Amino acid sequence: MGRIVCTGLGPGDPELMSVRADRLVRSARHVAFFRKKGRPGQARKMVDGLLAPGVTEYPMEYPVTTELPFDSPAYIDCLARFYDDWATRLATLAQTQDIVVLCEGDPFFYGSFMHLYTRLQGRAVVDVVPGIPGMVGCWSATGQPMTWGDDVLTVLMGTLSEDTLVERMQTADAIAVMKTGRNLPRVRRALARAGRLDQAWLVQHGTMAQQQLGRLADTPDEACPYFAIVLVHGQGRRPEVAE
Amino acid sequence: MGRIVCTGLGPGDPELMSVRADRLVRSARHVAFFRKKGRPGQARKMVDGLLAPGVTEYPMEYPVTTELPFDSPAYIDCLARFYDDWATRLATLAQTQDIVVLCEGDPFFYGSFMHLYTRLQGRAVVDVVPGIPGMVGCWSATGQPMTWGDDVLTVLMGTLSEDTLVERMQTADAIAVMKTGRNLPRVRRALARAGRLDQAWLVQHGTMAQQQLGRLADTPDEACPYFAIVLVHGQGRRPEVAE
Repeated sequence: MGRIVCTGLGPGDPELMSVRADRLVRSARHVAFFRKKGRPGQARKMVDGLLAPGVTEYPMEYPVTTELPFDSPAYIDCLARFYDDWATRLATLAQTQDIVVLCEGDPFFYGSFMHLYTRLQGRAVVDVVPGIPGMVGCWSATGQPMTWGDDVLTVLMGTLSEDTLVERMQTADAIAVMKTGRNLPRVRRALARAGRLDQAWLVQHGTMAQQQLGRLADTPDEACPYFAIVLVHGQGRRPEVAE
Repeated sequence: MGRIVCTGLGPGDPELMSVRADRLVRSARHVAFFRKKGRPGQARKMVDGLLAPGVTEYPMEYPVTTELPFDSPAYIDCLARFYDDWATRLATLAQTQDIVVLCEGDPFFYGSFMHLYTRLQGRAVVDVVPGIPGMVGCWSATGQPMTWGDDVLTVLMGTLSEDTLVERMQTADAIAVMKTGRNLPRVRRALARAGRLDQAWLVQHGTMAQQQLGRLADTPDEACPYFAIVLVHGQGRRPEVAE
């Protein structure tokens, strides 16, 4: 019986892959990865030039979403069938072959692979190799420490409601907001209401060749990619406790 | 002029170092690292067997704390002078040599190096290489996805007061608590009050040979190392927003 290894690839720069991920990618004979139809796929792009000649590629293309709102029951059902199908295909393939699944960032940190991981339990040997999360690459790119002392770090999704965002931003010391993209105007309003807009950064393609970063207040809402990350650095909370 | 590179070493397993960190460590001629007096130092242990013959080592030993409470103004002042001294020594050394500073986890995520980093600005060329944070290695070790969907992740220090911990734990979906050690009884009480104790894991030495993990409810408070991490996995919050 073969096995399935999902390896985190880190934030984008291929040199920030782990030694283990690098070896797995270079020696893989079968690789699978998620992508949108018609796109090369973020994870696949990150291993350009590393894959061995003759490798078999399995692009796992998300169902097209133009006709269904992404949060409608019909789309959620469509996505569940997509994960069911790929879990079955990978489990079958794993009976005769080792497969490496490529995953940007860290697989267990908001990664799509988790939907396959849960479905594959008991059907194949599945290992996961951690990677540097995208947000870590992004805060490294800003050249400023993210958290120190007793800072509380809160990681939020831009898809949350404005009121929820404000509430969480007010009590956090350091903040990372993922899934920005078309949610950026709401994230910006929430930061302003929480009094944190002046300290916020927007990092696009952190650690990659096309990296762009700057103060969010100086950056327009337009053309913000889905994977861009908003960061507010902690200032170093002093220890509270003297018990 | 030489330069100082602080490289994150990741969570513990040497194969989880980045390709760049691995190369920097193997080719370094001068390495500096923090440690407690009389201890080998966590970062130094992680590169055992990787350093080149003839490398010069600079152990940066924290001032001894037995006579001063660690949160007293006298100790904070003592620590500030310690960082001042080492910043000056590294800046002087960097005029003629490249230096690699070893740092467990990710340097900008609660790392001691940040205290040197801020002091070295304008005095040396300082680069930072991100690493997989310890908590990422720990949640990977549990074999369970940490966050998905719109989960909010909150990272807390065990040094926070019990009431602050409870408040943050109640509104978080996924939780990571660092700096546990002698704070574990308070962290445990806070989790119980927040109704999250049954879901909590304790991970010690995550990804290392001596890794230990289990349900916190089944683990006694005794002998919990300072670097142990408490985790509560997210359950996958559904998207809130339909704007």
